[in-house]
Amino acid sequence: MIYLDHNATTAIHPEVLDEMIPFYQSQYGNPASNHRFGRKALTAIEEAREKVAIAVNAHPSQVIFTASGTESNNTIIQGIADSYPETHFGYSAIEHPCISQPIISLAKKGFRTTAISVSQDGLVNFNDLEKSKNVPNFISIMMVNNETGVIQDMPSIINWAKKRKVLVHTDAVQALGKISVDFEELGVDAMTISSHKIYGPQGVAALILNKKIDLMPYMKGGGQEKGLRSGTENLAGIVGFGKACERVSKNIVTFRETIKPMQDVLEKKLSKMGAVIFGTRSDRITNTTFFSFPKLDGVTLLTALDKKGFSVASGSACSSNNNEPSHVLLAMGVDMELAQGAIRVSLGVDSNPTQMEEFIATLKIEVDRLKQLTAMAA
Amino acid sequence: MIYLDHNATTAIHPEVLDEMIPFYQSQYGNPASNHRFGRKALTAIEEAREKVAIAVNAHPSQVIFTASGTESNNTIIQGIADSYPETHFGYSAIEHPCISQPIISLAKKGFRTTAISVSQDGLVNFNDLEKSKNVPNFISIMMVNNETGVIQDMPSIINWAKKRKVLVHTDAVQALGKISVDFEELGVDAMTISSHKIYGPQGVAALILNKKIDLMPYMKGGGQEKGLRSGTENLAGIVGFGKACERVSKNIVTFRETIKPMQDVLEKKLSKMGAVIFGTRSDRITNTTFFSFPKLDGVTLLTALDKKGFSVASGSACSSNNNEPSHVLLAMGVDMELAQGAIRVSLGVDSNPTQMEEFIATLKIEVDRLKQLTAMAA
Repeated sequence: MIYLDHNATTAIHPEVLDEMIPFYQSQYGNPASNHRFGRKALTAIEEAREKVAIAVNAHPSQVIFTASGTESNNTIIQGIADSYPETHFGYSAIEHPCISQPIISLAKKGFRTTAISVSQDGLVNFNDLEKSKNVPNFISIMMVNNETGVIQDMPSIINWAKKRKVLVHTDAVQALGKISVDFEELGVDAMTISSHKIYGPQGVAALILNKKIDLMPYMKGGGQEKGLRSGTENLAGIVGFGKACERVSKNIVTFRETIKPMQDVLEKKLSKMGAVIFGTRSDRITNTTFFSFPKLDGVTLLTALDKKGFSVASGSACSSNNNEPSHVLLAMGVDMELAQGAIRVSLGVDSNPTQMEEFIATLKIEVDRLKQLTAMAA
Repeated sequence: MIYLDHNATTAIHPEVLDEMIPFYQSQYGNPASNHRFGRKALTAIEEAREKVAIAVNAHPSQVIFTASGTESNNTIIQGIADSYPETHFGYSAIEHPCISQPIISLAKKGFRTTAISVSQDGLVNFNDLEKSKNVPNFISIMMVNNETGVIQDMPSIINWAKKRKVLVHTDAVQALGKISVDFEELGVDAMTISSHKIYGPQGVAALILNKKIDLMPYMKGGGQEKGLRSGTENLAGIVGFGKACERVSKNIVTFRETIKPMQDVLEKKLSKMGAVIFGTRSDRITNTTFFSFPKLDGVTLLTALDKKGFSVASGSACSSNNNEPSHVLLAMGVDMELAQGAIRVSLGVDSNPTQMEEFIATLKIEVDRLKQLTAMAA
């Protein structure tokens, strides 16, 4: 089995697991407890917090641990709504559902919301907002799209927003560990990152928050995370997330030096085979190739590849189980039929050129076979 | 170090960890992915769901996985508020903050809420509600209190509620694995349980939900857990929770046969030493003893015991880090000074009589020493 779906989830790095195990075996404890077990647990969490902060150049006090990117995104959206009831929420048409759904739910409660369109290249049309009379005062724009891998021009977006005193949140879940993510330099007000996309465990993530925002807590209870996120901390998970964050800069080098040449080979071959690759005119992360063969159904191809031992995706993991075409591609103006053919290959630090050669050979065979079948059926 | 704070968190059982490890090493995957890695992950989650369902006698379709008891409680409270805007929320004065805080937050938004008093024995005065003209149509009553260990008379409460078509949620986090917890037989509409209180990993829990309730999702996004709880599943964590649930009936026997005699010895000695034990006139779980030595500060005693290698709590873990007296004891009418002295010993399946003997001997020495110091200072 060759795994080519690293944007969905990554295997935990052995070093990360090694760091976690003692916290499952002997160093257990509730960080809120006022005794040695509790204090050791608290110390481990604060050490992990520092590692996370270093990975994104933030201050440890700006790191709020949560259980998922989804929770981080719900926390910022619902928290802003509760803190600032006059908020007008803007979000791009290609955001993950864990941004769009909480915002749509607020719209039903009377909040003003605006979905911001994207270009054919997958870039946010923030100039459209410029012309609008009704500009949001909070926007959430993902740094890197999980399906296309397109990198937004965050500096321009943030520059535009700052001039208008618009608060900015960015979902950097797919950016971390692939490109540089610098909270301080970007100057965003809030940012979401997640452990299981960077070879850490599932079930842990963080919201990085500029403390000038007086955020109402989303998860309410015992007052953990300085009152901003209640619930007993996932000690081993947080320790693992910290360790995974330590590896982020190493991963970026791998993505640039090792993964990029593999992506180049794949995309050259795909083009030769007649595939349309999405977002190629924009800057993209070097592990993600989202493509479609005209008139070839994506799920059919995915299933054929799976049988041969290659795990790819047909869009994002969250929408893989329904057969609706990617909302990201439709927002980019891709026609329905081509969107139905979409396949995503996402490489990881454990991917290697031999796997890529094998994948390309099998892909060629399967595409030819399925095209013939389609021709016969027509 | 002897750990006597199992109500705060438990050490993971070795069998549970063994079951989790493969899901960190080779069987990783996103259950939403439409390929072998994804399908195997999904199968593992459904197997865990069955184990959880069996442990509480519910149907697997009634099990919604979350990341903490706190999240389960926020999910039911906020979900009910969104689904039924006319809800009048009732909750006992001794609920965990992750029930009371979300409800208090709803009160600020205009919802009707009622805190229900408890007796000196820690039992909910639901007869008070009877007399009230303004009866809640939703109540959340914890099955077992985390501080006193007092078991509520759930059958009577539920019987009362059913006659009045009042929806019932119960936080069974401290009950599971200590006494029988039967969702079907109880007939509650929703129930919260958590993994790290039953020798499973932290960061996993469940809300058991009667599907006649049309609950609006709290965590919004990709639509996992049949739309009721979005966010990539914590695969290894859920597998561990499932395994921990398999051990629940075994644990109940241990609590009855092994832990109960240890509690009896402890409480006999405590009474001899002049301690007041809270909730003794009510049914209690057999691992929890909450007590106070008149005129002796609880945190001082806790610190002294910690130095000697014994980890106990001064109330619940969540409030251990602030010095406010237990809201549970105050609700039971315990006077402020006595409440300030509270110490909780909570045993686990790994506790043994030798530990208890050592603890009692050390406690006696430390109490005598501190009493002398107090007398000298007076």
